[in-house]
Amino acid sequence: MQVSARNQLAGTVKEIKQDDIMAEVTLQLADGVELVAVITASSAQRLNISVGSQVYVIVKSTDVMIGAD
Amino acid sequence: MQVSARNQLAGTVKEIKQDDIMAEVTLQLADGVELVAVITASSAQRLNISVGSQVYVIVKSTDVMIGAD
Amino acid sequence: MQVSARNQLAGTVKEIKQDDIMAEVTLQLADGVELVAVITASSAQRLNISVGSQVYVIVKSTDVMIGAD
Amino acid sequence: MQVSARNQLAGTVKEIKQDDIMAEVTLQLADGVELVAVITASSAQRLNISVGSQVYVIVKSTDVMIGAD
Amino acid sequence: MQVSARNQLAGTVKEIKQDDIMAEVTLQLADGVELVAVITASSAQRLNISVGSQVYVIVKSTDVMIGAD
Amino acid sequence: MQVSARNQLAGTVKEIKQDDIMAEVTLQLADGVELVAVITASSAQRLNISVGSQVYVIVKSTDVMIGAD
Repeated sequence: MQVSARNQLAGTVKEIKQDDIMAEVTLQLADGVELVAVITASSAQRLNISVGSQVYVIVKSTDVMIGAD
Repeated sequence: MQVSARNQLAGTVKEIKQDDIMAEVTLQLADGVELVAVITASSAQRLNISVGSQVYVIVKSTDVMIGAD
Repeated sequence: MQVSARNQLAGTVKEIKQDDIMAEVTLQLADGVELVAVITASSAQRLNISVGSQVYVIVKSTDVMIGAD
Repeated sequence: MQVSARNQLAGTVKEIKQDDIMAEVTLQLADGVELVAVITASSAQRLNISVGSQVYVIVKSTDVMIGAD
Repeated sequence: MQVSARNQLAGTVKEIKQDDIMAEVTLQLADGVELVAVITASSAQRLNISVGSQVYVIVKSTDVMIGAD
Repeated sequence: MQVSARNQLAGTVKEIKQDDIMAEVTLQLADGVELVAVITASSAQRLNISVGSQVYVIVKSTDVMIGAD
């Protein structure tokens, strides 16, 4: 399935921290470039991801902000 | 100002496309790694960004999804 | 690709209204059950959708609210 | 109160799972059509919902994505 | 209808700027305290709001970030 | 750093409730005007906020909805 969300970057699962409801997944996109995703624990299970899994980071473009110094 | 949003990645503005209300900003994070942000045209003006500006991409972790093959 | 977003419902594209930047897509899930998605015009083109296309509506569970009378 | 969020679908609460902070609410829209909402536990209490409650699922159109095969 | 979104603040419509698809609505919450909402133009019409309308600003708590100096 | 998110209001932290993953932060903007933010517990720690901290509430304009009676 192709998704309308514009931003889809390849990454590797580096850490998963979860409780009964939520999971915080740290993803490595490149050396020193990490992103954190907060998804439901049941979605993490359904995707069957663990440390080392090759995944995609997906972000809808209306959810991306820009910061400038 | 420091922002609670977990994900803040350095990037360069590659393209800005805008109409009266919305702006679509393409950002380059690394060679071949791009993200698109949709913000208001007035925010783009307020940040005073143009092609080549050094900026940060900011995404709240609850807005990050994961895809797996 | 499987996506972590919990909510994925089958639907049919009923109407697409777009300008240079944004597209408003009306989707029919069942008789009398419609949802509207606002995505970028370039995502609509990339997905190659038109009226009648069979698609999925995808919503991250943290973006769903509940209303009660 | 009428809400600007475009997508408001009638449903029934099927399951509520919660911890001190978050609640994961499964809603049935029709036979075999379910959506999951993640809201705060205190919002779930304030709405006074329980299994069987008739509610509305509300989603802002900018939070809806489209998937295509 | 009561909505699960935790944050509902009373305000007055101060300005509406819109094109065919999107509307940018500036809301005044108090003297010198303004918020901007980007909703679809059709939602703005459906709510029948104009400058001076008494409305509520609604934000889901998972969409609120915190900044600190 | 300046952030594209249009809505940035000054406030004071009134209460922090957190578990291992999520934190629910209640912020006071003015007398009787409160907002709740749900962020990750690690972001709350990184910002080093506690009850009484002077902070900013930040909301992207595409995440603001409008309600009308």
